[in-house]
Amino acid sequence: MWSYQAPLRDMQFVLEHWLQAPQAWSRSPAFEALDMALAVQVLEEAGRFSQGVLAPLNSSGDRQGCRWAAGQVSTPEGFAEAYRAYVDGGWPALACAEALGGQGLPQLLDAALQEMLYASNHAWAMYTGIAHGAYLCLKAHAAPWLQARYLPDIVSGQALPTMCLTEPQAGSDVGLLRCRAEPQADDSYRLSGSKLFISGGEHDLTANILHLVLARLPDAPPGSRGISLFLVPKLLDDGQLNGVRCDGIEHKMGIKGSATCSLVFDGARGWLIGDANRGLAAMFVMMNSARLHVGLQGLGHVEAAWQNARQYAAERVQMRAPSRPQGVPAQAADPILYHPAMRRVLLELRTTSEGMRAIGYWAAHLLDQAEHDPDPQARESAGQLAPLLTPIIKAFFTEQGFRQASNGLQVFGGYGYVAEFAIEQTLRDSRIAMIYEGSNEIQANDLLLRKVLGDDGRAFGLLLAALRTEAGQGGEYAECAGFARALGSLCDTLADVVEAIRERTRHDSEYPYRAAPDFLQLCGVTLLAMAWARAARVSRALPDDDPLRAAKLQSAGFFFDYLPSRLAQHLGAIDAACAALAFV
Amino acid sequence: MWSYQAPLRDMQFVLEHWLQAPQAWSRSPAFEALDMALAVQVLEEAGRFSQGVLAPLNSSGDRQGCRWAAGQVSTPEGFAEAYRAYVDGGWPALACAEALGGQGLPQLLDAALQEMLYASNHAWAMYTGIAHGAYLCLKAHAAPWLQARYLPDIVSGQALPTMCLTEPQAGSDVGLLRCRAEPQADDSYRLSGSKLFISGGEHDLTANILHLVLARLPDAPPGSRGISLFLVPKLLDDGQLNGVRCDGIEHKMGIKGSATCSLVFDGARGWLIGDANRGLAAMFVMMNSARLHVGLQGLGHVEAAWQNARQYAAERVQMRAPSRPQGVPAQAADPILYHPAMRRVLLELRTTSEGMRAIGYWAAHLLDQAEHDPDPQARESAGQLAPLLTPIIKAFFTEQGFRQASNGLQVFGGYGYVAEFAIEQTLRDSRIAMIYEGSNEIQANDLLLRKVLGDDGRAFGLLLAALRTEAGQGGEYAECAGFARALGSLCDTLADVVEAIRERTRHDSEYPYRAAPDFLQLCGVTLLAMAWARAARVSRALPDDDPLRAAKLQSAGFFFDYLPSRLAQHLGAIDAACAALAFV
Repeated sequence: MWSYQAPLRDMQFVLEHWLQAPQAWSRSPAFEALDMALAVQVLEEAGRFSQGVLAPLNSSGDRQGCRWAAGQVSTPEGFAEAYRAYVDGGWPALACAEALGGQGLPQLLDAALQEMLYASNHAWAMYTGIAHGAYLCLKAHAAPWLQARYLPDIVSGQALPTMCLTEPQAGSDVGLLRCRAEPQADDSYRLSGSKLFISGGEHDLTANILHLVLARLPDAPPGSRGISLFLVPKLLDDGQLNGVRCDGIEHKMGIKGSATCSLVFDGARGWLIGDANRGLAAMFVMMNSARLHVGLQGLGHVEAAWQNARQYAAERVQMRAPSRPQGVPAQAADPILYHPAMRRVLLELRTTSEGMRAIGYWAAHLLDQAEHDPDPQARESAGQLAPLLTPIIKAFFTEQGFRQASNGLQVFGGYGYVAEFAIEQTLRDSRIAMIYEGSNEIQANDLLLRKVLGDDGRAFGLLLAALRTEAGQGGEYAECAGFARALGSLCDTLADVVEAIRERTRHDSEYPYRAAPDFLQLCGVTLLAMAWARAARVSRALPDDDPLRAAKLQSAGFFFDYLPSRLAQHLGAIDAACAALAFV
Repeated sequence: MWSYQAPLRDMQFVLEHWLQAPQAWSRSPAFEALDMALAVQVLEEAGRFSQGVLAPLNSSGDRQGCRWAAGQVSTPEGFAEAYRAYVDGGWPALACAEALGGQGLPQLLDAALQEMLYASNHAWAMYTGIAHGAYLCLKAHAAPWLQARYLPDIVSGQALPTMCLTEPQAGSDVGLLRCRAEPQADDSYRLSGSKLFISGGEHDLTANILHLVLARLPDAPPGSRGISLFLVPKLLDDGQLNGVRCDGIEHKMGIKGSATCSLVFDGARGWLIGDANRGLAAMFVMMNSARLHVGLQGLGHVEAAWQNARQYAAERVQMRAPSRPQGVPAQAADPILYHPAMRRVLLELRTTSEGMRAIGYWAAHLLDQAEHDPDPQARESAGQLAPLLTPIIKAFFTEQGFRQASNGLQVFGGYGYVAEFAIEQTLRDSRIAMIYEGSNEIQANDLLLRKVLGDDGRAFGLLLAALRTEAGQGGEYAECAGFARALGSLCDTLADVVEAIRERTRHDSEYPYRAAPDFLQLCGVTLLAMAWARAARVSRALPDDDPLRAAKLQSAGFFFDYLPSRLAQHLGAIDAACAALAFV
């Protein structure tokens, strides 16, 4: 049966050795009270909640789904109770400022928390997933009175926010949205229009729901320069309903326990967040946080697939394997774990999960450094690097989430296709992450056109420098010198690729659009290469007889064996993209 | 909304130009009454049935699923009526011998029929999908009286057969099966045991169901050399139930309208098919036919994904594209069809679907040639080539079915994830085909270890010769000389790869197991290259102003642009497989 164990050991390895986070914390006044012991305590507590409360609701939530009746949404059994336990545990406040009632812990720990929530119950975690982004958005852009009124509700978890962006005719293209906001005499606005695919747009976890809504003012210019952001609560302060109606919920492929709502705003009262017609800028504060979260969903799915496939492969006995571990006697049939095709899939699952964990946490750690590092230059670099990593993490991680869930399912054979083992649910749940919060195609364009070509290569230069530093450090040790060499040569390749794309773009302005998807994949694989080169190097800090040390070297070896084939695929496709694409 | 149009134009192109089937038919006495006009008539009729009867039941069948109560299974509304229409249309008899009441048409036409059934309603077609394989198996191995008693029921469609192989502990490893058969005084047997995952093991489409069951005789040797095949009808000739009980049905990720049954045989009466302890050989007659069918499921899914994604992309308007077809004026937002990322996905969908169609039909045509070609040498070659293609078609096509269904879903954005558009159903339905009838990992081992390395390379030599012939012929025409050159050089590469694998295997007997999955992928991509090189060449037979001719050249161009990147990936992985794989 499907199960989930929080991978605390590897999380700790990433924090302590891969990121050396405790050193960074001790440098930052914001985190001076934090050390590894406290961090581990937080992770253990989050692990207990995920394993003990959320994981048992994963399959049942999928089976029951949400129910809609007369504008009300009932979430699956146990979801509301789990949310109360989440609030009682203080989890919504984890990475919020102490001045606002938060615990002031780093985003890094929040990333680990999010990974566990998504891995153990993606559907449930959809309700809480947007909260931190909304918190950041309000903190950065809302008027002081609005912050004072609503931020405490978000920090305490008393109200849950939503992100109301999509309309039937406006998905990837927010410029096409039509929702209207009429200014009122008291500085409030009345919002009218329809929103689609709103996660948690209505539910029974909290009394109030805080909708962050994109809409147009009466005199707004057309397109994306005429969009403003509003906070529209479900309940007004007098406890009355505020003209937001849930018209229905979607029947979806997966995350069935998450209510995906159609909302109708019928003169609902709201307040502007940030400047008029500058709503996208404010929304992007939320969106960037959400995109990292979505990437962590992909990580959660890979981890869940890896754990469950590994366990099944150890238990299922079929056919004699061509070889088995030393000392294991031959039998009529072996655990499928010994079969080469399964070993390869399991190693791919493991190296993808652990590699992505290091990279995902690195991005969160960069967000902490951008805000709290005492060195202004470190703050600036981190602040430039994190947004470059965001689209890679969003798109590459979610594609891996889906692909590795499918690989994990394959290990189960026919049992993988039936609901009983729930690995098919992991596959179904994982698929949405490639679509929402900006489809993976949008991420690819954002990365290549805006963040690499459109930035004079500054942020990209910082990434290359970080990769080269790692390649230089790993070269000092015999056991990982080969990995470091491969990473170093990959840096040269990547720099050449960007130059070649820049050059080709000069006489073929459509070229980068055609090359973007494989360029993003190439960057994702490169980040995994950095993850494994560094993991191999820093595993030296572990005791010689620690099995994790051997496992890290073994996994790095596997990853680098297959790296050239992955690079060749994407480099070849970036080259193939030079040819025009027909209109079909 | 999801829809399906039988791709009659492309089917006709494959039959008439790619395969030049009418020439082959006119050479064979078995098909002398068949010409292209009659073939087109059959395809049109099959298209009408698929589009008009099955496609409308695809989504509703998925929503309703099957119901089990007290051993009885109800299929979704309309399934039984559709089956009656199928029988009335004479479709079960299509490729059966005239002497047995069949229509004596080639397997090639049956393959086209199957593609349409699977594309329009995979779940429904599961009930009929095994019938032709069972027909072949009985015809080849059953005693005359057993053939006389049961073949007419299969040919007429009055009874539907099943394939009862899997048991809880015996999936890929049939050697582990425990079902027992006790010989009786009257030459019948009593079967006892449990079977799992039996498609159509119980249903309401036909009164009788003919179970083909693998079981062990009392004195049978252990393992796969002690397995015999039996025919066990649901109803005996006196109309009484024959001790076969359906214990329950599976709740699955997809093909929900197909009843996947647990069966308990409780002293059920059966008759031996073929020799005692040689059941696997008899079963493999059925299995090889079934594996080609499963490959055609993959083709059906790619085709359905291509059609639906193409249509949605033409209708959905989002954002301004960086370029648009000549003469189309710029607008605030373009059909997403114009966006480069979508063009690439759509071209991949189209080239995969049409390329796989040519190869899948080729395999069916080879089966016809192996049986009916007047030239004994042609019969022998075709008989050697078809089994080599089978595992490639089964594994490569089904993986593409899943991958391209996912690509198609992505085109729909958020709408792809909701049930309303049913593309998510195509994705869910497609996933099983990578698992059943021998998992794709099993196919990879079958291809490389048994059919390439284990055969002294004779069948593989025939494949290379066919590829080289095509490369030679295409070289004569300027517009496709580049494709032919690429195919020719790919032949050299493939020959070298096989030699290198043979060499490495001499001192590392596990190596081919590690290399097998990518070797199969490499062969699949190579077959697509042949499909497109030939499609480009033979499209010269079409009138100059036929849009299909331009489309074929354009598609071939796209395919060969991206071919090197796909080859590099698999060649690199075959190389990487030289390294040992750790036990995890």
